[in-house]
Amino acid sequence: MKLALFNDWRLGVVTGEEIADITALVPQWSPSWPYAWMLTFIANFDAMRKDIERFVPSAPRYLLEAVELKPPIPQPSKVIAAPVNYPLHQAEMGGVQGVYHGASIKTIEHYGLFLKPPSSIVGPNSMITLPFKGRRTDHEAEVAVVIGKTVKNVVESEAEQAIFGMTGLLDLSVRGQEDRPFRKGFDGFCPLGPVIVTRDEVKDWDNIEFRLTVNGTVRQQGNTGRMIYPIRRLVALASYQTTLYPGDVIATGTPEGVGEILPGDVLTLEVDGVGRLTVSVSRQYAEPPEGMGSWFDPFLVARGAPV
Amino acid sequence: MKLALFNDWRLGVVTGEEIADITALVPQWSPSWPYAWMLTFIANFDAMRKDIERFVPSAPRYLLEAVELKPPIPQPSKVIAAPVNYPLHQAEMGGVQGVYHGASIKTIEHYGLFLKPPSSIVGPNSMITLPFKGRRTDHEAEVAVVIGKTVKNVVESEAEQAIFGMTGLLDLSVRGQEDRPFRKGFDGFCPLGPVIVTRDEVKDWDNIEFRLTVNGTVRQQGNTGRMIYPIRRLVALASYQTTLYPGDVIATGTPEGVGEILPGDVLTLEVDGVGRLTVSVSRQYAEPPEGMGSWFDPFLVARGAPV
Repeated sequence: MKLALFNDWRLGVVTGEEIADITALVPQWSPSWPYAWMLTFIANFDAMRKDIERFVPSAPRYLLEAVELKPPIPQPSKVIAAPVNYPLHQAEMGGVQGVYHGASIKTIEHYGLFLKPPSSIVGPNSMITLPFKGRRTDHEAEVAVVIGKTVKNVVESEAEQAIFGMTGLLDLSVRGQEDRPFRKGFDGFCPLGPVIVTRDEVKDWDNIEFRLTVNGTVRQQGNTGRMIYPIRRLVALASYQTTLYPGDVIATGTPEGVGEILPGDVLTLEVDGVGRLTVSVSRQYAEPPEGMGSWFDPFLVARGAPV
Repeated sequence: MKLALFNDWRLGVVTGEEIADITALVPQWSPSWPYAWMLTFIANFDAMRKDIERFVPSAPRYLLEAVELKPPIPQPSKVIAAPVNYPLHQAEMGGVQGVYHGASIKTIEHYGLFLKPPSSIVGPNSMITLPFKGRRTDHEAEVAVVIGKTVKNVVESEAEQAIFGMTGLLDLSVRGQEDRPFRKGFDGFCPLGPVIVTRDEVKDWDNIEFRLTVNGTVRQQGNTGRMIYPIRRLVALASYQTTLYPGDVIATGTPEGVGEILPGDVLTLEVDGVGRLTVSVSRQYAEPPEGMGSWFDPFLVARGAPV
């Protein structure tokens, strides 16, 4: 089943070119932040699935192209992310003089996991504003896993049962020396969607193809089979660290081809089975508000090395 | 006003030695995760305040010592944290051979901000389980700020209006080379409480005294006036990075005196005006589940330097 949020945060099932509105089935649905009903819906999905399937044929329907899609999970309890989880991405990070400040780039085996703030999530067709004119911001195309249950200490061989589904995710990243949650946590830096594909439709977690185009040119092509820590291992590692909750998102890492995004760029991520997630980059950079203080100026430029 | 959650997640106002149960005033209250009603309550607090004050005298009351206190915000949308925000803590981190792997320790001006997962939050009198027997875990005593409004791009001079109140927070931390959200994000690694003191009761954000004892011995003594980035600046920096929501927690950094915690230890954080937050460390370390895989073994020991 393909689930999406649309218009004023209604919940729909995508069938071909249409979306069926199943909001009437969602307990405590509300169009206001923090959208906790979506997490409860995911937690109870297995029990509700037959009711949903019965309801869909008679549900209000819209053409998919006529609705405004929202991020399919607007407020997960956390977004966990995998740093440097593809060998060729590690290689390219060591290869670009200056951008990575001459530091030796290690992998997820060294860094563990990090977090992005849920407030960085945006949906399809959003406009992203780059926060720093003097610094490089990159695209990182990823497959995201959505957790379906409250779990702790899941082992790799049983991790699939903890998964609700998958979606597409762009882990946008300012390059520089700050901690990853800072550089990767700006508003708009976590485009998500366009739909969540439930687990039963995913044939092989270790063979999901995805690609990113920038202004129509292919920049990244990935396959989850080339990860250093495959998807089930990421779930196991994350669940040893901390309890995973329904709706939690795990960004599984980006393959090679990472590159700079510039004002006016149009980014399209396509994860096979999930569909296309397109976002645009604003032609204007963000401007710090007046009165921000001189202490803020150093963040506006990359420090320690040329960009 | 001093707000606390207690027993089955009821909301109370603490008055002296008692707690008045105001749960009846909370729209959509529920004893189940994700407790989104607490975020909505904070967002609407100013409008509800008079009703609360009228209700308290006739509310059901309990002795504070007879109830089980819960973390006052069990599920914020994010927990932002300030790395190395006190000069003497920076100094001590460079001073202990090996623990910090010989790396030069910089400050918040270099690292920006990081995140802890909300799933690491626990309340007063919780039992903490250390995740790795072969690695050092430290206490970090902190004052936490709770955000009261949805805000973006707040400047330092106006940051106080974005604050709902303050509470105590322990930023427990495994030492090692992984990213901060991993080392500081284990279940139980964010004790919070015991109450939220609303902004009107905080006289001077830059002069809040707090101290941590371990087994009755004072280990850390701090004052928010000695921060590198004071509280209002942290709010400004965080709100430039990403939208802050009602209930968001900002851990403001730890002063000198950071040290190892060991099985059986009892930690008590006391923030003036907030009260005492006591947690215990289990005598047993966590054990990875059987079938975790040999890939996990390297996380069990500190790598790259002696502990």
